[in-house]
Amino acid sequence: MAEKIEIGYTDRLKEAFEVMGKMGLLLVSVDANGKPNAMTIGWGTVGIIWGKPIFTVLVRPSRYTHNLIEQTRDFTVNVPTPEMADIVAFCGSASGRDHDKFKEKGLIAVPSKKIKSPIIEQCTINYECKVVHKNDVIKEKLDGAILSSAYRSGDFHTIYYGEILGVYYSNK
Amino acid sequence: MAEKIEIGYTDRLKEAFEVMGKMGLLLVSVDANGKPNAMTIGWGTVGIIWGKPIFTVLVRPSRYTHNLIEQTRDFTVNVPTPEMADIVAFCGSASGRDHDKFKEKGLIAVPSKKIKSPIIEQCTINYECKVVHKNDVIKEKLDGAILSSAYRSGDFHTIYYGEILGVYYSNK
Repeated sequence: MAEKIEIGYTDRLKEAFEVMGKMGLLLVSVDANGKPNAMTIGWGTVGIIWGKPIFTVLVRPSRYTHNLIEQTRDFTVNVPTPEMADIVAFCGSASGRDHDKFKEKGLIAVPSKKIKSPIIEQCTINYECKVVHKNDVIKEKLDGAILSSAYRSGDFHTIYYGEILGVYYSNK
Repeated sequence: MAEKIEIGYTDRLKEAFEVMGKMGLLLVSVDANGKPNAMTIGWGTVGIIWGKPIFTVLVRPSRYTHNLIEQTRDFTVNVPTPEMADIVAFCGSASGRDHDKFKEKGLIAVPSKKIKSPIIEQCTINYECKVVHKNDVIKEKLDGAILSSAYRSGDFHTIYYGEILGVYYSNK
């Protein structure tokens, strides 16, 4: 098990965004019994709001992850390695309602230092985030081309604003 | 005048965020007569949403910039040099309603390639952004400590989602 080193939230951001754009990142949340779930995300932003480092993630209300984040008010974002491509694809199509993705795919959940949702051991970068705000993608305020490409069936994303409480890196 | 080179949106992001956190960035918009205005921002996020590179900026409805972005639906974000610290401070306190900040502070407006709002020649990194969505900071969904520290007088920020159409860099 490679040691995880604490880094700054901007330190490997270019790398994280490149993986997010090409393969996807793993958004991890946890249920009331401590069972974690991972969902693949290709969208998210990072920066500073209210003087705090913030990771925003978008989750459709229909998703299992939506229920979990609503309950725990926290999540982690995890940057997978190229070797995890099949796991990332699986976590983007299967639902946590029907699958124990960690168990089925051999993902190792490591307890976070400051929140309930765990991080994924095998991932190179992990962000621990506590929800400090949420709002929604608003149909009437959205560019028409985006509306017709991303929201044919409605289910407009909730945007969760996670204060980044810790970032960890391990060179696999 | 140093040449401006087109770069990727992640290429100098760490640098941009460090300046945003320490000094602030300059958010530029333009009025119907082509007169530009610069406002200092310390908050914003960058990432991928709807498959597009996005720069989100937060602007209070009371601000002059708010009116301008509502009209043109675009803005630029500009990363100042350390030598511009006094200009950045001025642009964070004076309003474009009362001041021609470009003229008074010697800021040089260079036409953007794809939007109406110009970029600032003297800045090291410039982002051209077209608004594709907006929503608001929602009082009832906000962390209590943030609510009392940032919104004592209400005036909850509008969050503008700018699709990044171009990023330019010049080494001053």
